[in-house]
Amino acid sequence: MSFYFEIAKTQGKARAGVFHTPHGDIPTPVFAPVGTQATVKTIPPRDLHAIGATLVLANTYHLHLRPGDELVRDMGGLHSFMAWDGPILTDSGGFQVFSLAEINRIDDDGVTFRSHLDGSKRRLTPERSVAIQENLGADVIMCFDQCSNPTDRDTLVTAVRRTSAWAARCREAHPDDTRQALFGIVQGGIFEDLRAESAAFLRELDFPGYAVGGLAVGETKAEMYQTLDFTTPMLPDGKPRYLMGVGDPDDLVQAVLRGVDIFDCVTPTRLARHGAALTKDGRINMRGLTYATDRRPVDPGCTCYCCQTFTRAYLRHLVKAGEILGAYLLSIHNVHFLLDHMQAIRTAILEDRLPEYAGQFLHRYLHTG
Amino acid sequence: MSFYFEIAKTQGKARAGVFHTPHGDIPTPVFAPVGTQATVKTIPPRDLHAIGATLVLANTYHLHLRPGDELVRDMGGLHSFMAWDGPILTDSGGFQVFSLAEINRIDDDGVTFRSHLDGSKRRLTPERSVAIQENLGADVIMCFDQCSNPTDRDTLVTAVRRTSAWAARCREAHPDDTRQALFGIVQGGIFEDLRAESAAFLRELDFPGYAVGGLAVGETKAEMYQTLDFTTPMLPDGKPRYLMGVGDPDDLVQAVLRGVDIFDCVTPTRLARHGAALTKDGRINMRGLTYATDRRPVDPGCTCYCCQTFTRAYLRHLVKAGEILGAYLLSIHNVHFLLDHMQAIRTAILEDRLPEYAGQFLHRYLHTG
Repeated sequence: MSFYFEIAKTQGKARAGVFHTPHGDIPTPVFAPVGTQATVKTIPPRDLHAIGATLVLANTYHLHLRPGDELVRDMGGLHSFMAWDGPILTDSGGFQVFSLAEINRIDDDGVTFRSHLDGSKRRLTPERSVAIQENLGADVIMCFDQCSNPTDRDTLVTAVRRTSAWAARCREAHPDDTRQALFGIVQGGIFEDLRAESAAFLRELDFPGYAVGGLAVGETKAEMYQTLDFTTPMLPDGKPRYLMGVGDPDDLVQAVLRGVDIFDCVTPTRLARHGAALTKDGRINMRGLTYATDRRPVDPGCTCYCCQTFTRAYLRHLVKAGEILGAYLLSIHNVHFLLDHMQAIRTAILEDRLPEYAGQFLHRYLHTG
Repeated sequence: MSFYFEIAKTQGKARAGVFHTPHGDIPTPVFAPVGTQATVKTIPPRDLHAIGATLVLANTYHLHLRPGDELVRDMGGLHSFMAWDGPILTDSGGFQVFSLAEINRIDDDGVTFRSHLDGSKRRLTPERSVAIQENLGADVIMCFDQCSNPTDRDTLVTAVRRTSAWAARCREAHPDDTRQALFGIVQGGIFEDLRAESAAFLRELDFPGYAVGGLAVGETKAEMYQTLDFTTPMLPDGKPRYLMGVGDPDDLVQAVLRGVDIFDCVTPTRLARHGAALTKDGRINMRGLTYATDRRPVDPGCTCYCCQTFTRAYLRHLVKAGEILGAYLLSIHNVHFLLDHMQAIRTAILEDRLPEYAGQFLHRYLHTG
């Protein structure tokens, strides 16, 4: 089997495992940096390997519009195109269609929208999304789903039924997971009965992995954690569970405690481009005057190139001067920070001390206590 | 002696040598990439080493204004601040004062101007320029000079006399070249008698190196080459000769043929940020539709990370999508291209075949023939 999920150890609901893919093994829990346009912004693949990235996400919507999924296919697929030989996951395009594009019509068959780049009229259906993702050639591909406000029950009822029907069509369009594994996406917002309906339907389709979609899009953190509390037990134990779009360091450990294995988020690279750094003592804004002559690394004790080489004073100068090098160095650091955090979480599970690690990490990161 | 220039081989006027500095040996002729704000734009020092950079230039005017030369001094000087342990050269600030700032007054004592950043009123004199450069701590520092239109004889007469007087004051302010070598700058535009007057005066001050200033600022290439033809023989044989602000691949070889040893220019990194790449067949604009599915590297045969890893199709996508990674990869490539070119020039001198190399390079680069 080219895809196989192995759980090495559990502690409570948390799982330490390995997700085997055709492009390499992914120790889980794992954080996947996001390469929206076939590049994790500012970070060359050489550095992604160096900071320990295993899985990278790319966005179907963006790549379909530019440079075009057929061009990517003709250039040998995403791995070859972006020179990343590790595992890749593509989303379905649904989230961007609903958040970036100008929607013309949603119906039971799919979505008609206008490109945010050139206004051209496009249509995405479950079958088209799968076909585009097959052209892109990622290891893990996602079902086309309808993402809605997680607290708007009326809309969610329709969205869940549509997401179920679309998942069945995606499964039919992509019946064989040998080369690319198709994951289902559970919707239902913060409502337990809707999540249960969605999860039950998707389990029947026997996907090699399941995502929890529609979170981290407006609800409170408490609502997100509660939703995970009741949703992960609805998913099969032996399959990887993927919480989409979540990357705050505190959310990562909270979600692993609740049984999640895979995460992705643009946060670390987006923060970097805005001059913010993740540290064990919380997020800091490098523009602060307090860093002007600070000789310490961005995050003391960190082993990344940025922290091993440069001072906060220099990073502050780069950010203030608008230098690209600042965005690059902080991107390297922020992504490394999350990868390192996930590795520490995994080790803690293996050593039966995740609650202790979580407590200490959250205490320091959130300055509680 | 901490600074020593050794000529290993000459061919005609061209020289292959080594310029010894406290931060390392610089094989010459050499091209110095420009790190205006204490960073060669987009390129971390690790990569500068990897692509073979030996000497890096930083701009006194910019660093004086931000983050401030005293802050840089307090952080251990430029080498420590920007984490570049190789040789560094700073310019005098003169060129930027005359090109970027809003000038209030030029007089025989110095220049009063307003910062282009915050409009604050500042004054630069020969003594201040030296003091700022001493704070920055580069290996090679430059005399404060007046740069003028190279074909406007009337202005140049005054500029040459002022540059001479200012050079004497810089020499007096910095009499000891042990830790930092102070270079003189010959002015005089395209006029042989003015260059002769300037060079004769500066030779009396016995600088450890001499720059040819005021070129590549509006005159034709033919005028620049003619000016070099008569100016380099006015400079002492045993000292390094530095042609400021020149970095076109054809100009580099033409100037080495005329006896120049050191160059700097923002061109390779600036072109990169605009999506242009240097190749042995000339400059190309990566946006071109012709590259959309081009599987070749940016410059076939090139050994840099960009060319060894990525296709033109991918670079075109990055540039079109406005991705920072595109600017970084093209910067790496363009700087490597010039460093590689200079190394080939040096080898050609050592092997007594510079004219042949120059002919072949120019024929292909300029598509002549």
